[in-house]
Amino acid sequence: MVVVMQQGATEEQVQHVIDRMVEMGFNVHRSTGVIHTVLGGVGGKGDFDLTVFDVMDGVKEAHRIASPYKLASRSFRPGGTVIRIGDVEIGGDRVVMMAGPCSVESREQIERSAEVVAKGGARVIRGGAFKPRSSPYSFQGLGEDGLRLLRQAADRNGLLVVSEVMDQVQIPMLAEYADILQVGARNMQNFNLLRELGKLRKPVLLKRGIAATIEELLLSAEYILSGGNYDLMLCERGIRTFETYTRNTMDISAIPVVKKLSHLPIVADPSHGTGRRDQVTAMARAAVAAGADGLMVEVHPDPDRALSDGAQSIRPEQFEELMGQLRMIAPAVGRSI
Amino acid sequence: MVVVMQQGATEEQVQHVIDRMVEMGFNVHRSTGVIHTVLGGVGGKGDFDLTVFDVMDGVKEAHRIASPYKLASRSFRPGGTVIRIGDVEIGGDRVVMMAGPCSVESREQIERSAEVVAKGGARVIRGGAFKPRSSPYSFQGLGEDGLRLLRQAADRNGLLVVSEVMDQVQIPMLAEYADILQVGARNMQNFNLLRELGKLRKPVLLKRGIAATIEELLLSAEYILSGGNYDLMLCERGIRTFETYTRNTMDISAIPVVKKLSHLPIVADPSHGTGRRDQVTAMARAAVAAGADGLMVEVHPDPDRALSDGAQSIRPEQFEELMGQLRMIAPAVGRSI
Amino acid sequence: MVVVMQQGATEEQVQHVIDRMVEMGFNVHRSTGVIHTVLGGVGGKGDFDLTVFDVMDGVKEAHRIASPYKLASRSFRPGGTVIRIGDVEIGGDRVVMMAGPCSVESREQIERSAEVVAKGGARVIRGGAFKPRSSPYSFQGLGEDGLRLLRQAADRNGLLVVSEVMDQVQIPMLAEYADILQVGARNMQNFNLLRELGKLRKPVLLKRGIAATIEELLLSAEYILSGGNYDLMLCERGIRTFETYTRNTMDISAIPVVKKLSHLPIVADPSHGTGRRDQVTAMARAAVAAGADGLMVEVHPDPDRALSDGAQSIRPEQFEELMGQLRMIAPAVGRSI
Amino acid sequence: MVVVMQQGATEEQVQHVIDRMVEMGFNVHRSTGVIHTVLGGVGGKGDFDLTVFDVMDGVKEAHRIASPYKLASRSFRPGGTVIRIGDVEIGGDRVVMMAGPCSVESREQIERSAEVVAKGGARVIRGGAFKPRSSPYSFQGLGEDGLRLLRQAADRNGLLVVSEVMDQVQIPMLAEYADILQVGARNMQNFNLLRELGKLRKPVLLKRGIAATIEELLLSAEYILSGGNYDLMLCERGIRTFETYTRNTMDISAIPVVKKLSHLPIVADPSHGTGRRDQVTAMARAAVAAGADGLMVEVHPDPDRALSDGAQSIRPEQFEELMGQLRMIAPAVGRSI
Repeated sequence: MVVVMQQGATEEQVQHVIDRMVEMGFNVHRSTGVIHTVLGGVGGKGDFDLTVFDVMDGVKEAHRIASPYKLASRSFRPGGTVIRIGDVEIGGDRVVMMAGPCSVESREQIERSAEVVAKGGARVIRGGAFKPRSSPYSFQGLGEDGLRLLRQAADRNGLLVVSEVMDQVQIPMLAEYADILQVGARNMQNFNLLRELGKLRKPVLLKRGIAATIEELLLSAEYILSGGNYDLMLCERGIRTFETYTRNTMDISAIPVVKKLSHLPIVADPSHGTGRRDQVTAMARAAVAAGADGLMVEVHPDPDRALSDGAQSIRPEQFEELMGQLRMIAPAVGRSI
Repeated sequence: MVVVMQQGATEEQVQHVIDRMVEMGFNVHRSTGVIHTVLGGVGGKGDFDLTVFDVMDGVKEAHRIASPYKLASRSFRPGGTVIRIGDVEIGGDRVVMMAGPCSVESREQIERSAEVVAKGGARVIRGGAFKPRSSPYSFQGLGEDGLRLLRQAADRNGLLVVSEVMDQVQIPMLAEYADILQVGARNMQNFNLLRELGKLRKPVLLKRGIAATIEELLLSAEYILSGGNYDLMLCERGIRTFETYTRNTMDISAIPVVKKLSHLPIVADPSHGTGRRDQVTAMARAAVAAGADGLMVEVHPDPDRALSDGAQSIRPEQFEELMGQLRMIAPAVGRSI
Repeated sequence: MVVVMQQGATEEQVQHVIDRMVEMGFNVHRSTGVIHTVLGGVGGKGDFDLTVFDVMDGVKEAHRIASPYKLASRSFRPGGTVIRIGDVEIGGDRVVMMAGPCSVESREQIERSAEVVAKGGARVIRGGAFKPRSSPYSFQGLGEDGLRLLRQAADRNGLLVVSEVMDQVQIPMLAEYADILQVGARNMQNFNLLRELGKLRKPVLLKRGIAATIEELLLSAEYILSGGNYDLMLCERGIRTFETYTRNTMDISAIPVVKKLSHLPIVADPSHGTGRRDQVTAMARAAVAAGADGLMVEVHPDPDRALSDGAQSIRPEQFEELMGQLRMIAPAVGRSI
Repeated sequence: MVVVMQQGATEEQVQHVIDRMVEMGFNVHRSTGVIHTVLGGVGGKGDFDLTVFDVMDGVKEAHRIASPYKLASRSFRPGGTVIRIGDVEIGGDRVVMMAGPCSVESREQIERSAEVVAKGGARVIRGGAFKPRSSPYSFQGLGEDGLRLLRQAADRNGLLVVSEVMDQVQIPMLAEYADILQVGARNMQNFNLLRELGKLRKPVLLKRGIAATIEELLLSAEYILSGGNYDLMLCERGIRTFETYTRNTMDISAIPVVKKLSHLPIVADPSHGTGRRDQVTAMARAAVAAGADGLMVEVHPDPDRALSDGAQSIRPEQFEELMGQLRMIAPAVGRSI
């Protein structure tokens, strides 16, 4: 760590900071500049609270040197992680399409959806059985019945299943029906849930929270990895900004940034990223062009009548057109789909 | 609801929108302006998905008329809610001070803290036993032992206890030791937790998420209220913005806005709101001047050595000085402390 | 416009709102719902101040119906605008590459840059002569000398010139040397400058401010269009969010949104959009995949030694590789480059 | 400056960074930790481009040590700046109230406003003659006629005048009529304007941009100070965040932060900060409780009929009530009003 003292900091203030650094296990190197005294510390524990130094008397600012995450960092696995589920590889040469409705609503709806997405070239079907909804009066999902319908539709069409787990209590049930357990944006910092998923031996898809920095996303990943579950992929799904035309602002640049900082595969969700059907395909193309390892897209046979998130679900014919475009774009980044 | 059609929308597009509105139970009034056709709908269910209309062909924009929350709105209880716990009233004439360390760390630390805050005039002691931490390598709290120490320290000093519940599984344990159960910012949209707290008959303090709008905060409140638990207070604790000098940007204006839109008491937490000891007291004063019903302030006997959030904990002597200032400010808004 | 009254609004409050609407030239339609009275107004002037109604007693909320911009809206020119400068078309079938250094630094540097970008396939060279810098102690540009060097380098390589105008006073000088006058993000709401550019008969490139909504960008465009200058293109160059890893968050979704709402061509600037050389090419690809009409990319022969913005300038060999990738992506959206 | 190398950075990469630091005039201290090599640099120029290092191969991150601003920093004048205009002191013991309408609209309106605010205890009248408006179709101000009316109304009521200058061209005219020249939020980084104001010998009030960090505000201040004009006060007027209920989010914490980092007086503008009349007085109280040196509040004799910003102007009777409350709050922070 590095602590920069204010101009005019007293010797007593400098000494107080040094004492605290030593107590925390740092070896301290003091360098006296024309304006600022700078204290460098090496060897302390990784998880100390940096901000304690920020507010000490006489301190101008403090910086951490070591990353607060280790297992999630690119240097841990420079070659990158490839997750294998059956014959599907996430993080490999092929961009993996995950598609399906926001929620499982009925047998007919999910069967029809599975056919559409399988025919278009998706390898994984998505569909929610437990829905986190802002309003207590909105449709909350079909529960275990929904999971059963989803699994059957997937099996009939040779697809894998990804579905959201909202709570540590639900993990066993989800693990029974789904191939990939999804952690939603609202749960990115539900640390009890993350810790339990670290003990699981099933792939997890961790979505970035709407106000989470990329560093915080990687710290949440660290919770799962440090439990021993390395089959983890991340997902960019839009962040909250001042712009209101789109529901969120999809941070496409998070894709190359995650590829640089971490070895974990990164998936993009342009449906939640934009919240608007008329923007989804453009952003799906952008994500693949930026290097995403996979896409998660909401497709609904009749979006105007969807019980949740219909506005961001594309129609079957849009999905087909999109797949054609993505097949043209992927080679530009050395991938296929 | 009101749907505004784009300039040049076709009759077919208009008809499609009307059909969907009628299917959803709305009576539709059509008004044809020089530029835009506007469709007004009355009588539908409150929880329909407005954005479905936003993306229909030919639609310019759609607006909801009725509030998505009912029980949390000011019109439900125009006189405002007062929560009574023993002889403490939250939402009444006196501004209630809740203070104490971020985490319970040891018997000595929590006893000393309780003495300091009780002597200064606090009515409630805060202290975390289960800590949600961004990094898996940070101090995670003393668990039930911490709760026991907190309860004892509170009882010895005539204080009430507020402490955070991180998960629905923890509710019974927390309810045994605490007078007020706190829902942290990261859990503001943990809907399973909210739903269970709605069944409880104990006061709850619900913190605003760092990226939550005031409307979303009130919708989360609705989850608890609709379960029948009306002893609910809200808490502003800073939102995430582009400014990095402070850890969060405390949205002081949320205080008068909540007072206008809702009958629920609102507490302000300047420690999390700023993340910096050197800003806490200024923001505590500001919150009372803006009309807050209570304050939640982190106080630690030795903040430089706190195991968590030491940077935002004030020292005992700062706390005493602050209480003196607040006693001068409260009468300007017709309150005492 | 539509005004929704609060539940329980008095007849007097309703009447006060109606009176104000009538004074402002609206015909008012009153509709009384079970909960809310709704007042619809047609026929008023487009530029009234909507928020006046928001804060009137008894008002819940007010919505504008008509767009506040006219000339910038898609419905004004449904087929889209194509700007022709010599044999270059912006908004046509070909994606137009604009490239060059942040600042003109010397004859050698700009000549070398012009060769590199012309060879790679750019049609326009960029380069600043007057630099808006956050610090008064930073390099401020070569001024008119820089413009002269830029023009010469462009002419020798068959390129058009785009360069930034910082002030209405500078317009004549810029118009002498540049083919396209750029308005920087900090000046997006310098209305005196916009008004003067509306009187010019030269193409203008208007950058989105870092905190400007898309609607505000279109309103600023309206200033220029309403002066009679229709050769206007817009530029997305990143917005300010809470994420700090990238300098800005590039809002790729602004590209399809602008294409939907407006007829004006939209260019993307991934150099300012990310502020990091290691992200620029990924975001350039994403922008073309999302439908951008042009790109503006900073290229510098020796970025580590650039006098400004070296961190976001790519190297000549990166530029060449990028052009190859873009030639593969453009056909997926029916374009060439 | 401090550069932290990535884990596994090569010797060649380290050497390249050192070479660049030396070229820029730094003395380099190299320290080799277990994981990271850290390079400390002292003695370079203050205005180098830090981000160039951020993107060099092998670099993890780079930090600036010295503040990028000097003259604006607290250490330049530890005792704080007091601006004297006649018998009014800004930055002294008394909180200075500046009040008046958004725009000068007519002789009657400005005369009536001047009487109201003078009677209430304001020392300065505000009023715009040139209005920066998002839409070209909105009221743009009375121009010089407005300034003349404003001056006369001020003189008749013993008030000073503050009014906005939009452009360097307008400086002489404004300087003739106003005692304080205001730079609006949109112009905070209009560097040509700032530079010219630095040459003036009249007080300037510089508003924070809606997306400007506090550091950027201080850098803009540096432009004016470095020209030799030290009679400068800053103004917090709300920043843009995701919250839409208020027009902006007023960053009250900027007040104590500016007091800590800088010697310049800081004024708060709750009218622009909230955009809503029903929040203005609460935020005015909060600002004084947080330590503001002055307030700028919009007051209009008939806000519903104001030609601009009526929604955020308070009524005369609200102003009077507010002044009474502020007289009670100011002593809590050792001030009077």
